[in-house]
Amino acid sequence: GPEKKKDPPVVHELRVTLEEVLSGCTKKMKISHRRLNPDRRTTRTEDKILTVEIKRGWKEGTKITFAKEGDETPTNIPADVVFVVKDKPHPVFRRDGSDIVYPVQVSLRDALCGCTVQARTLGGRTVPVTPQEVIKPGMRKRVPGEGLPLPKFPEQRGDLVVEFSVKFPDRLSQSAREALGQALPPS
Amino acid sequence: GPEKKKDPPVVHELRVTLEEVLSGCTKKMKISHRRLNPDRRTTRTEDKILTVEIKRGWKEGTKITFAKEGDETPTNIPADVVFVVKDKPHPVFRRDGSDIVYPVQVSLRDALCGCTVQARTLGGRTVPVTPQEVIKPGMRKRVPGEGLPLPKFPEQRGDLVVEFSVKFPDRLSQSAREALGQALPPS
Repeated sequence: GPEKKKDPPVVHELRVTLEEVLSGCTKKMKISHRRLNPDRRTTRTEDKILTVEIKRGWKEGTKITFAKEGDETPTNIPADVVFVVKDKPHPVFRRDGSDIVYPVQVSLRDALCGCTVQARTLGGRTVPVTPQEVIKPGMRKRVPGEGLPLPKFPEQRGDLVVEFSVKFPDRLSQSAREALGQALPPS
Repeated sequence: GPEKKKDPPVVHELRVTLEEVLSGCTKKMKISHRRLNPDRRTTRTEDKILTVEIKRGWKEGTKITFAKEGDETPTNIPADVVFVVKDKPHPVFRRDGSDIVYPVQVSLRDALCGCTVQARTLGGRTVPVTPQEVIKPGMRKRVPGEGLPLPKFPEQRGDLVVEFSVKFPDRLSQSAREALGQALPPS
């Protein structure tokens, strides 16, 4: 017969939570593909479970390829099935490479007078963070080793990055304004 | 002879200042292209001045095409020469569509106690802007009609947008902290 051509890869997203990236996990992915019947001319649809091992610390875009798991026809070479890792949005944390960003908002009073923030970790613990200086909007404080495993050296981990925003009061009384004018440097 | 093919367009950036977009301007662009000699077989290099009319308010990406001003050879149809408008970075202002953003930094004291900012316009005037409320980081105040001309209705203009950032003090004395703790709301 004529030479068989290979179909282009079938690409699926594989969405993982940051917790899954922290610990690693196994995903069973059910696919459905056409297979040749014994007559080599007709086809049937078959379900198959592909087992994907997500290693600790894997980055978005990591690809896992299952060779020739696409549709089979009398005239083709089945396509490869490719899964591409994609982070699910997390309600609390944001990923930044192997670091985990924990955004926290403090009041202007706490930003200026000092405070302790109970930073959450991805593992579910809390770590107290007490900046010694004035907290400026956008300031970051690192808690070493509380981020994600490094994909190439999973025994090492990135940092937890506490990222501060400062909530200003909507309005101030005249007497408060005067007291602030006295206490704050002019520039 | 064989059918002549047209070369793909020759694209040049045409960089304009925001002041030039405000007023409109004429640019003389010198190009150099090969032209056929009278024998129709040999070529010479010729300089030519192309006059580009930049209309008031034109956006980045606007294209001006000069037909067949590319190189001429015995076998081709000369390419079109295309100029694509691109904004030059401005030391003071930033463009946002037909609005002009004027970033200004105020001290935390001015942000909380009130202040008047002398906003510069692209035309070189100053406009006083006095927010009546607490200035929060990223807050914007509009001065209507002081932006760029709308490209389709150049008699109308966008706004000048004063964008505030707030400079926090690097450190505060213990007594200042205490006074601030008294004057500021807890959250």
